[in-house]
Amino acid sequence: MDESVLNCEHGLGVSLRDATGDQCPPTLASALNYAVFPGGARVRPQLCLAVALANGNPEPGLASAAAVAVELLHCASLVHDDLPCFDDATTRRGKASLHAKFGERIAVLTGDALIVAAFQHMARAANTVSDPTRLASVMGIVSAGVGAPMGICAGQAWECESRVDVSLYHRAKTGALFVAATCAGAAAAGVPTPGWVELGNSIGEAYQVADDIQDAIADPDSIGKPTGIDIALDRPSAVRELGIDGAVKRLEACITRGLDSIPACRGRSQLHAVVQKHSNRFFPKGIKRSAA
Amino acid sequence: MDESVLNCEHGLGVSLRDATGDQCPPTLASALNYAVFPGGARVRPQLCLAVALANGNPEPGLASAAAVAVELLHCASLVHDDLPCFDDATTRRGKASLHAKFGERIAVLTGDALIVAAFQHMARAANTVSDPTRLASVMGIVSAGVGAPMGICAGQAWECESRVDVSLYHRAKTGALFVAATCAGAAAAGVPTPGWVELGNSIGEAYQVADDIQDAIADPDSIGKPTGIDIALDRPSAVRELGIDGAVKRLEACITRGLDSIPACRGRSQLHAVVQKHSNRFFPKGIKRSAA
Repeated sequence: MDESVLNCEHGLGVSLRDATGDQCPPTLASALNYAVFPGGARVRPQLCLAVALANGNPEPGLASAAAVAVELLHCASLVHDDLPCFDDATTRRGKASLHAKFGERIAVLTGDALIVAAFQHMARAANTVSDPTRLASVMGIVSAGVGAPMGICAGQAWECESRVDVSLYHRAKTGALFVAATCAGAAAAGVPTPGWVELGNSIGEAYQVADDIQDAIADPDSIGKPTGIDIALDRPSAVRELGIDGAVKRLEACITRGLDSIPACRGRSQLHAVVQKHSNRFFPKGIKRSAA
Repeated sequence: MDESVLNCEHGLGVSLRDATGDQCPPTLASALNYAVFPGGARVRPQLCLAVALANGNPEPGLASAAAVAVELLHCASLVHDDLPCFDDATTRRGKASLHAKFGERIAVLTGDALIVAAFQHMARAANTVSDPTRLASVMGIVSAGVGAPMGICAGQAWECESRVDVSLYHRAKTGALFVAATCAGAAAAGVPTPGWVELGNSIGEAYQVADDIQDAIADPDSIGKPTGIDIALDRPSAVRELGIDGAVKRLEACITRGLDSIPACRGRSQLHAVVQKHSNRFFPKGIKRSAA
């Protein structure tokens, strides 16, 4: 396991130990751990750390805290997204979804507590940060990626509207937290963030397209969650719009656009390699790629 | 309307304007406003501001941001608390509860977005704060009041356990956010917080006992929400434990304990008066008080 993964798992462990500490109701404590461990690919926190590293990572404590916060918020969104009133998914990451295992009340509270834990973890990083104004900037970026008007909550809320701008919906539901990851990494390193928006947007869009492809063709057992949701819930999907081949082409184009967008920085080539490595995982097994 | 109420309403308006800004899904935007306006008594933010003021309020921007955050988090907790899987309450503050009006999905998302907005609002206050380390300290205090292991989420989660320490349950579910309010006010003013815990705890307990009394004897129409919940859901309650007269005595004792706990500070007598004024509202109309 590489260093940035270990860094992230360690930070998540610290945050969870705090949240499940003395006097935590035992079921909530179990559910919090269940929601975060074992994790998925941890793409977002690694992207955050990789951007900070590519820019010299002068505030490693802050970059790590931002990475952990982004992942906690992602886990929170999965728990709430699986709830009966949304996707009503009974499996996630190859095991029972959180509400299927612990009940709906604990699932709502687990999501809430993870959101709070994310911000609490960043606030605690203040002790390790030499420039405390940078902390507020990172927090602002992270919160914009999850709240309203343009973060995950807003993205989910588009599912409740009769008229939806699909691009806006995907940018908010999926892209915003990737943008938060790249821009928080940049802000933690003290470099201007606008140059890092496109990387987050492109990888976010790639991730969404990959998810659409999986939903259309993958075997639920192999990916550990239900498939066929887009058609069942009549959701917009790159596969429904473009077919499988067209969706794969769009996925490739998103990744290329993201890679090309990486601003000049001292660790550009290493970052390029990290993004490439994670992007390779977006292609479902057996899929035909134009580049291959 | 006194200045601290105006201050709070203004700050809530700013935060909501940001959250419901350009590109926010319209139903979520309406629901966010519905959850926050018109408000209840705004006891917690006023307590926070009153403590900061009693200590000279050298960072008014930070104290106001903390007060607003505490109220947003309170509103979030009410929305989630009313959900069908918890209290299944159809009314709140004299109108339809949020999920009754906007549906369960929007209610979950509104709570989530309000939690995020609270932290985003504090992060934005960084621009107005002369000592930025103080911001992290205030954020840490506020997050402890809502998350796990000892904030509101933990308090609610005790409702899912078969064995409950009632005092711990109430401290987490109700007391923790009052403690966050008093201690955040103190931290914003740069004074040590431990001396301010007891005021928050006592007023929190008083509030809880008052709520138990209301639940037992009030008319649902006059308080704008359902009553009789404690017995229906077999919840611990001061009235069930002590009877009405005993509960009123405990309410009086909590308020006295809170008032007595206020540490020496330059605005002690004004703060005493503010706490007294809010506490008077805790007594349901027509109730017999020992002091009266």
